[in-house]
Amino acid sequence: MNIDVLTLFPAMFEGVFSSSILGKARDKGLVRLSTVNFRDFATNKHNTVDDYPYGGGGGMVLKPDPIFAAVESILPADGHVADADPAAGPNVPHPAAGPGSGKPRVILMCPQGETFTQKKAEELAKEDHLIFICGHYEGYDERIREFLVTDELSIGDYVLTGGELPAMVVIDSVVRLLPGVLGNEQSAVTDSFSTGLLEYPHYTRPVEFRGWTVPDVLVSGHHANITEWRRMQSLYRTYKRRPELLDRVELTDKEKRWLKEKRLEESRKE
Amino acid sequence: MNIDVLTLFPAMFEGVFSSSILGKARDKGLVRLSTVNFRDFATNKHNTVDDYPYGGGGGMVLKPDPIFAAVESILPADGHVADADPAAGPNVPHPAAGPGSGKPRVILMCPQGETFTQKKAEELAKEDHLIFICGHYEGYDERIREFLVTDELSIGDYVLTGGELPAMVVIDSVVRLLPGVLGNEQSAVTDSFSTGLLEYPHYTRPVEFRGWTVPDVLVSGHHANITEWRRMQSLYRTYKRRPELLDRVELTDKEKRWLKEKRLEESRKE
Repeated sequence: MNIDVLTLFPAMFEGVFSSSILGKARDKGLVRLSTVNFRDFATNKHNTVDDYPYGGGGGMVLKPDPIFAAVESILPADGHVADADPAAGPNVPHPAAGPGSGKPRVILMCPQGETFTQKKAEELAKEDHLIFICGHYEGYDERIREFLVTDELSIGDYVLTGGELPAMVVIDSVVRLLPGVLGNEQSAVTDSFSTGLLEYPHYTRPVEFRGWTVPDVLVSGHHANITEWRRMQSLYRTYKRRPELLDRVELTDKEKRWLKEKRLEESRKE
Repeated sequence: MNIDVLTLFPAMFEGVFSSSILGKARDKGLVRLSTVNFRDFATNKHNTVDDYPYGGGGGMVLKPDPIFAAVESILPADGHVADADPAAGPNVPHPAAGPGSGKPRVILMCPQGETFTQKKAEELAKEDHLIFICGHYEGYDERIREFLVTDELSIGDYVLTGGELPAMVVIDSVVRLLPGVLGNEQSAVTDSFSTGLLEYPHYTRPVEFRGWTVPDVLVSGHHANITEWRRMQSLYRTYKRRPELLDRVELTDKEKRWLKEKRLEESRKE
C-alpha cells in the first residue's frame, strides 16, 4: 500500500512512521509512507498557503491551489482530479476511485467528516493508495472538499490543533490490517474485539502484588469455569461502561436473563 | 501543567511534542512534556514488562510492577498510590486526586475506557499534573486499572496498535485549552464549534479557481445575508452529516420550520 500525507508539519510524522508496527511494516516493504509539505507548492512570493475568508470573520482558510498542486504531484500521469464532476456536487465519491482502479482515495481530515470506525478502517485497508490532507487550525477552501477529496474523516468529537494526529490514527488502524503486518501474537489480542463486547480483565504474574491477588478461578486450571468467568466479566464491563454496544451482540438465553436481572436491579435502585 | 507519558516507544513522541502548538506551549513554559520508558523499571534480568495471562489464552499482559514503579518515580515524595483504597473496587476516582490537590490524574489509554470528548478535555485542562499510561498491543494487568489509575480513556471505536497516538490526541486537545497557548487567530476558529453545529463552508482567494467560483453572497459585502447564509449552511451540513447533533442545538422558530420541511421532504422520498 502507498500512503502519502500532505502536511505543513512533516517532522510530526518521523517518530511515528519509524516506530513499532508502522516502522516494521515499512521495513518489510508492506507499506510506503511519505509526507509532502504543501507549502512547497505555494505560488506567491511569501510561500503562504492560507488567506482571509471571503465574507469576513475570524480564522484563516487554506487556499485551494497549493493543495490541488501537491495532490497532483503525487498522482500517476493519467491524473485523477480531472475525473471529478462539478455537477455531482460535494461529497460524491469519485466514481473512478477505489480498490483496483489505480486511483487513490483522497482523504480530508476534518471535524465535519464522517466519524472514523473500525468498519471504515477495513474498507480503506483494501485500497492501493491513500492520500491524506491535514489542515492545521484553519478551515479548508470548500473547493478542496468538493472537487479534490473522496472522503472526509473525523476521529471523534473533540477539538484538535490539526489533522496530523487524526491522520496518524487512521494510518495506524489501516496498516495493522494489511496482510503480513501483525504477528500471530498481536492478532490474538485483536480477536477479542470481534465478540462486540469490551475485554474481560487480564492478570499476569506475580499472583500476589502488594496484597492484591489474582482471582482464584484464573489459577484453578478449570478451563470451562475460566471461559465462563471471562465471558461474564466482558458482559458486565460492557453493561456498566458501554451499554449501547450490547444491542449489537448475540447473547445466550442465560446471558439475556442475567442482563434482564441486572437492569431490574438498577431500576429498583433509582 | 505537567504531563508525563509512560511508554515503550518514547521516540514516537519526539516530533509531536516539539512541533506546532505543543512545541510552542513547551517553549513558552506553559507545559512540561516528558516521556518515561517503563522498561527501565523492569526488575527481571531480561527487562521484560509483559508475561503470559493467568487462565491461558492468546496475547501477552503488561505486568503491574514496572508500571506502578514508573508512576511512583514521577510522584512527589508524599506519594499517591497509597491513597488508593482496595475496598473501593475498580474505577473509583482516587479521592485525593483533582485540581489543586497536588495529586496527578493517572490516565490509562485503553479500548475499554470512557470515550474521550471535548467536555473531558475541558475537565483535564483544569488539572496540574497528568500522567498517561500507554500499553502496546497487549492487555494491562487488572491491578493497574483497579489500584493505580484515576481515569480510563478511549478516543473512538477503532483498533489501534497502542495507546501512544491516543495519548497524543488527548494531550493536544487539552494543552490547546490552557491559557496563553493559542493566539487569538486560532481561538476564533475554535469558537465556531461552540454553536454545536458543523462549520459552514469557507472560501478564500482566488475567487475563481479552475472554473469553480466563490458563492456570490460571500463577495456581496452584505453582512446580514452572509451571516444568514453561513448559519443555514451549518444547519444543512449538520442535518445531512450528523443529524444527532441537532437535538442539542438551540434553533430559531424559522430554523425549526426549515428543518421540519427538510425532514418531511426526505420522508416523502423514502
